Amino acid sequence: MHQDYIQPNEWSIIEEGFDPHRVKSSESLFSIGNGAMGQRANFEETYTGETFQGSYIAGVYYPDKTRVGWWKNGYPEYFAKVLNAPNWIGIDVKINGEVLDLHTSEVIHFRRELNMKEGWYKRNFTARLANGVDVKVEAIRMLSLQYDEVGAIRYSIMPVNTSADIQMTPYIDAGITNEDSNWDDTFWEVLETNTTMNSGSITTKTMKTDFHVCTGMYSTCTLGAEEKQCTASEQINRDNYIGLTYGLTVDQGKTCTVEKYAGYTVSLNHQKSAVTEASKKALFEASQLGFDQLIKTQAETWASIWNMADITITGDVKAQQGIRFNIFQLNQTYSGKDTRLNIGPKGFTGEKYGGSTYWDTEAYCLPFYMVTKNPEVARNLLTYRYHQLDKAIANAKKLGFTNGAALYPMVTMNGEECHNEWEITFEEIHRNGAMIFAIYNYVRYTGDYSYIPEKGLEVMIAVARFWHQRATFSEEKNKYVILGVTGPNEYENNINNNYYTNYLAKWCIEYCIEQIHKVKASYLTAYTRIWDTTKLTEEECIAWQKVASAMYFPYSEKYQVYLQQDGFLDKELTKVSELPDDQLPINQHWSWDRILRSPYIKQADVLQGIYMFEDRFTQKEIEKHFDFYEPLTVHESSLSPCVHSIIASKLDRIAEAYTFYVRTSRLDLDDYNKEVEEGCHITSMAGTWMSIVEGFAGMRITNDTLSFTPRIPEQWGEYSFKVNFRERILKISVVPDGVTIVLEKGQALAIQINGVLQTIEKSEVNYV
Amino acid sequence: MHQDYIQPNEWSIIEEGFDPHRVKSSESLFSIGNGAMGQRANFEETYTGETFQGSYIAGVYYPDKTRVGWWKNGYPEYFAKVLNAPNWIGIDVKINGEVLDLHTSEVIHFRRELNMKEGWYKRNFTARLANGVDVKVEAIRMLSLQYDEVGAIRYSIMPVNTSADIQMTPYIDAGITNEDSNWDDTFWEVLETNTTMNSGSITTKTMKTDFHVCTGMYSTCTLGAEEKQCTASEQINRDNYIGLTYGLTVDQGKTCTVEKYAGYTVSLNHQKSAVTEASKKALFEASQLGFDQLIKTQAETWASIWNMADITITGDVKAQQGIRFNIFQLNQTYSGKDTRLNIGPKGFTGEKYGGSTYWDTEAYCLPFYMVTKNPEVARNLLTYRYHQLDKAIANAKKLGFTNGAALYPMVTMNGEECHNEWEITFEEIHRNGAMIFAIYNYVRYTGDYSYIPEKGLEVMIAVARFWHQRATFSEEKNKYVILGVTGPNEYENNINNNYYTNYLAKWCIEYCIEQIHKVKASYLTAYTRIWDTTKLTEEECIAWQKVASAMYFPYSEKYQVYLQQDGFLDKELTKVSELPDDQLPINQHWSWDRILRSPYIKQADVLQGIYMFEDRFTQKEIEKHFDFYEPLTVHESSLSPCVHSIIASKLDRIAEAYTFYVRTSRLDLDDYNKEVEEGCHITSMAGTWMSIVEGFAGMRITNDTLSFTPRIPEQWGEYSFKVNFRERILKISVVPDGVTIVLEKGQALAIQINGVLQTIEKSEVNYV
Repeated sequence: MHQDYIQPNEWSIIEEGFDPHRVKSSESLFSIGNGAMGQRANFEETYTGETFQGSYIAGVYYPDKTRVGWWKNGYPEYFAKVLNAPNWIGIDVKINGEVLDLHTSEVIHFRRELNMKEGWYKRNFTARLANGVDVKVEAIRMLSLQYDEVGAIRYSIMPVNTSADIQMTPYIDAGITNEDSNWDDTFWEVLETNTTMNSGSITTKTMKTDFHVCTGMYSTCTLGAEEKQCTASEQINRDNYIGLTYGLTVDQGKTCTVEKYAGYTVSLNHQKSAVTEASKKALFEASQLGFDQLIKTQAETWASIWNMADITITGDVKAQQGIRFNIFQLNQTYSGKDTRLNIGPKGFTGEKYGGSTYWDTEAYCLPFYMVTKNPEVARNLLTYRYHQLDKAIANAKKLGFTNGAALYPMVTMNGEECHNEWEITFEEIHRNGAMIFAIYNYVRYTGDYSYIPEKGLEVMIAVARFWHQRATFSEEKNKYVILGVTGPNEYENNINNNYYTNYLAKWCIEYCIEQIHKVKASYLTAYTRIWDTTKLTEEECIAWQKVASAMYFPYSEKYQVYLQQDGFLDKELTKVSELPDDQLPINQHWSWDRILRSPYIKQADVLQGIYMFEDRFTQKEIEKHFDFYEPLTVHESSLSPCVHSIIASKLDRIAEAYTFYVRTSRLDLDDYNKEVEEGCHITSMAGTWMSIVEGFAGMRITNDTLSFTPRIPEQWGEYSFKVNFRERILKISVVPDGVTIVLEKGQALAIQINGVLQTIEKSEVNYV
Repeated sequence: MHQDYIQPNEWSIIEEGFDPHRVKSSESLFSIGNGAMGQRANFEETYTGETFQGSYIAGVYYPDKTRVGWWKNGYPEYFAKVLNAPNWIGIDVKINGEVLDLHTSEVIHFRRELNMKEGWYKRNFTARLANGVDVKVEAIRMLSLQYDEVGAIRYSIMPVNTSADIQMTPYIDAGITNEDSNWDDTFWEVLETNTTMNSGSITTKTMKTDFHVCTGMYSTCTLGAEEKQCTASEQINRDNYIGLTYGLTVDQGKTCTVEKYAGYTVSLNHQKSAVTEASKKALFEASQLGFDQLIKTQAETWASIWNMADITITGDVKAQQGIRFNIFQLNQTYSGKDTRLNIGPKGFTGEKYGGSTYWDTEAYCLPFYMVTKNPEVARNLLTYRYHQLDKAIANAKKLGFTNGAALYPMVTMNGEECHNEWEITFEEIHRNGAMIFAIYNYVRYTGDYSYIPEKGLEVMIAVARFWHQRATFSEEKNKYVILGVTGPNEYENNINNNYYTNYLAKWCIEYCIEQIHKVKASYLTAYTRIWDTTKLTEEECIAWQKVASAMYFPYSEKYQVYLQQDGFLDKELTKVSELPDDQLPINQHWSWDRILRSPYIKQADVLQGIYMFEDRFTQKEIEKHFDFYEPLTVHESSLSPCVHSIIASKLDRIAEAYTFYVRTSRLDLDDYNKEVEEGCHITSMAGTWMSIVEGFAGMRITNDTLSFTPRIPEQWGEYSFKVNFRERILKISVVPDGVTIVLEKGQALAIQINGVLQTIEKSEVNYV
């Protein structure tokens, strides 16, 4: 744990007291988002201390030029960068002519709260300016889930010890830059600026990608309890900055308030020529509803989300806060409405990883959305990849594959590969398997088979073709091998016969062939269409099957485990626990070659496969693998502890599972990896959810039957959550000596509890 | 072969006719250098067509910031870049007010010649300007070997069809940039500019590295056969440009001539404050000698170089031209006078590879200098690394090695690592072995053992320490393994147990221990000093020996060959000859992952080891390895064909050896790799020399005895060369049915010819 300043609270993230060293961390942790846009918790007023400014728009990116020292054929031409968008939260404040700035003021009191229950962010502080004036400020901000082009701020100032001339200038600033800017490119071009008495906007477009964005604002200013309306005394309209200045003389103890309605309208959703008008309309309507109504609607929307997605834990406030923070962030990041959008590893909380889509979505995030939302949301995530199939085929072709083989990108914004480390871009090909596993997982859970004939099978065929071509027949081994890959454990590069990759390759082919037969048998129209468009042949399927049937898997008789890759046992198998503390994390202390030749595992690799295909391994086998690999795992990826937690639960090692759980659920709040300043780890938050639902509660689907094997950490009184399973809503509550399941919606169904088949009716049923 | 425009000629490189598409290629091929500086064959007068401007100063570099997408611990902070230095060759010419520019003129006649025998470069052309004036130009240029801060140009113009006003402005331009500039950094800062009636200079310093350089010129202008002196009518002195303008009215058929003496004085050789004065002095002295005298001295210096280094070939003009071009370039690049300098892969002919030092020097270049020069030259090359031992130790420490272990850099300018691909920087560690092999090779050939107690042993100990620490004990194999390396074949990365690397590691340790004993026995003072400074212990040597004795080597019983690395036989071993032509070179057609998992070998790897340690293998073993690896080798490194040529000679496959020889000797002249525009492949030129001396002539040292096994390609009448062996100069002439050896200098010695021991006296001896 690297920090411990967040107040334990079941429903809110709270910081008390002002510490400039925590500003960037809190900017990440108090981020807000609504699926369409999001922003770091930067201050509205001027702040000249260290800060990381960020406001982001879903789906808007810039193709930053890829430059590497030593170009390799097949590298992408560009790297998709999430752009810091024009700042609309800004309100410049002057008190008796002096700029309000917490960096130069004495901060007498400071508190901020991210209210996760209702979806707003509030900051209260009292500051003493150099000119001796004390002001008390309250700023509340929200991004509407209901009206996703709209955000609102209520910013109130009270002079505490004197009356004061207060000048407030809500503004929009399009002269922003990216923290991670590699080159001196500019990203935004200003097309138009407007101001009126109470509103203003800046219309911009992104260079190269030509996204048009209008950043608009509508403001009001009132004075005192009687809410006397004030009008702006000045309209500022510069190149890339517009603002409205309100000047007031405020009596001691009186409050003046600016309400600012602002947000983005984007050419993804409007004609380019219409974004400015759309902005005006959206903001005017928001102002008519008013701030209180927006907050009320927001709370209602969140209530309905929490009703389904919440996990309650009693007896462990930090665990409760942790899981809610994770669920809250996932919902802020992705709403599931738009198949063009996806889930970047940092969501709207930072720039890192380019805001792009990784295999994290399929391998980690899908279950959360699948279980806590309507099935369309998960289906939209699958459809995102279906729409990008052509680009995945083009990508594979660029690398020398033929005949419609597809390689999905490691990192993407629009389907094109955007990563440029050869060992990842070209070699971390297991990602292709996650695409198919997600389809399988979706169908298994939702029972919605229609996705396969409609969309999924084409993806499967293209991926099967890839695996078939990517495998090599080894005369030496008389088996098919897959050479030169990087597995989930990125602390190994260019290895041969990564067990996880080989396993997925074989499975993808076999699952595809099975689905071809099934679609042929039951969905003849779809089958004919797919047969035509993919130009599939019987011979091709036979050739695939040959590869799948004779796939090679490295295995150690001595340890009775599958080996992560060929030659793994040549390493010195010293446990992580035997490393000196000052060597950890190894990625901060060791050179890359040393990491590579060490046995240390960044994130679950063989165990990732065992997690995904658990039903194909005996408990004994799972245990052997866990005991072999866990001691070598350094968990230097945020995606690692959750998988280990789930397997530890499966092995009934609840204390160990709990340790992993805490590490994953409070990763950002407690800043385990010393990097929360850069943003939060959004995709791994879904892993936290899995640690409870699939881990402690042991939720599985076996032969179309939902089953639970509920366990509970000794630190917890009880925990409960809901699942949306095939048109039923079930609430599962686990207590130390049993489980209660309530069928809240839908028809009765049979489920397995601790291996025993039970029928759940509408009424409450208790199982001990 | 990609081009065929260079005229076959035994002593000159000649281009006839003007083709703008050949300009950049010829700029590389006609480059001149004198060890201290060098320049591409850019035109003196304005040229607005496509060109690659380059003028370089040995040892002057800029530490360009290393930036990569994904930083790895241990990467160097900077990449040493050879700098394009201020241009001193420029002479702007106007004819009746119109700029002379071959890009805009009609070129009626054009010829250039690089005279390798005498060391000068001449260009003749007749151009018709847009204004109708035809001018005939002759420009001769040289960089003095004798006075290595001085170059000279004689530039003559004759108006052919009319009299004309001719204005000539010899100038210096410090406003130059690098072609390969990654960033917008500027590299040079101008400190001072001067002009007088007949001279001028610009004194600059490099940013960051603070090298001070004065670029000076001294010019004269004469008219007509009577050589009437003219004076400059204007002195131009701008920020980073100085020039002297001569304006003349020249009668039809008369010639006006500018002679320009110019060059660099550098703070490597002078006090910083004295470079300007030193420049003035050097150039004034050169002007007093005069152009003709400089040319005469140059021819004499080259005559003495050629006397020793020449290889004559009869019956094959292209082969003769090729080998002389290689020998000429090697001598232009490195004179052997200065232990701070070394041999960049492109010499002074381009910017690529940063002008830095690679293992090419030790593995490929050393023999050429060792055999054709006095021993000090080769010793200076070894000393270069000895002086950098501290930095090699610091480099290893940065990567986690301890106790004075050294890892020499892959690329360096001053001993610090300057390369930033992890698979090379951290993993291509076999380079460390080449450092030791070079010492062994030097001592073996020159008989100068003193280098080892004086300098070499410290290097050996540091390298032995590295290998000891870099090896891992594999319980699985019960052997020491070396994991995660890149061998000489860079088409494999992060492999385990590269045969070549493991072999060198074992050899380095054993050779080191042997030398420790020898130095202990015979050089006690040195031994005591080394024992003290290195803090070596007996136990340490025992630990090293343990690793060396139990080193693992991958071997195939089936093929009876050592394998390039673990798992090599899992590949599909399709021969290069079975690849479609349009797939070659694979590095231009295949993605990196495809190259990596293919069996194709960029340059000799296992065979490199067999070449170096040939005496430890039977003829049968050599043949087996050659027949296994040669068909898989794509020779996409310029360093590859020479080694294959030597081994083919050893196997008496002379026709095959000849094919490799031609490819290597005319690599640049015929532009086999389609990249000569970027510069010539200087270091591989030494490989060409080896292909003849060690290949066809089969020169070896066995038990202190020089031996030859002379063979001759059927295309050749005869060939001969000299060697400087332990204070004897021998001339070896090979004819189809025998060999003649003349002892030109030194005492009689016993040598082996075709395995038969003979005594060579002063007189000529013939062996058939």
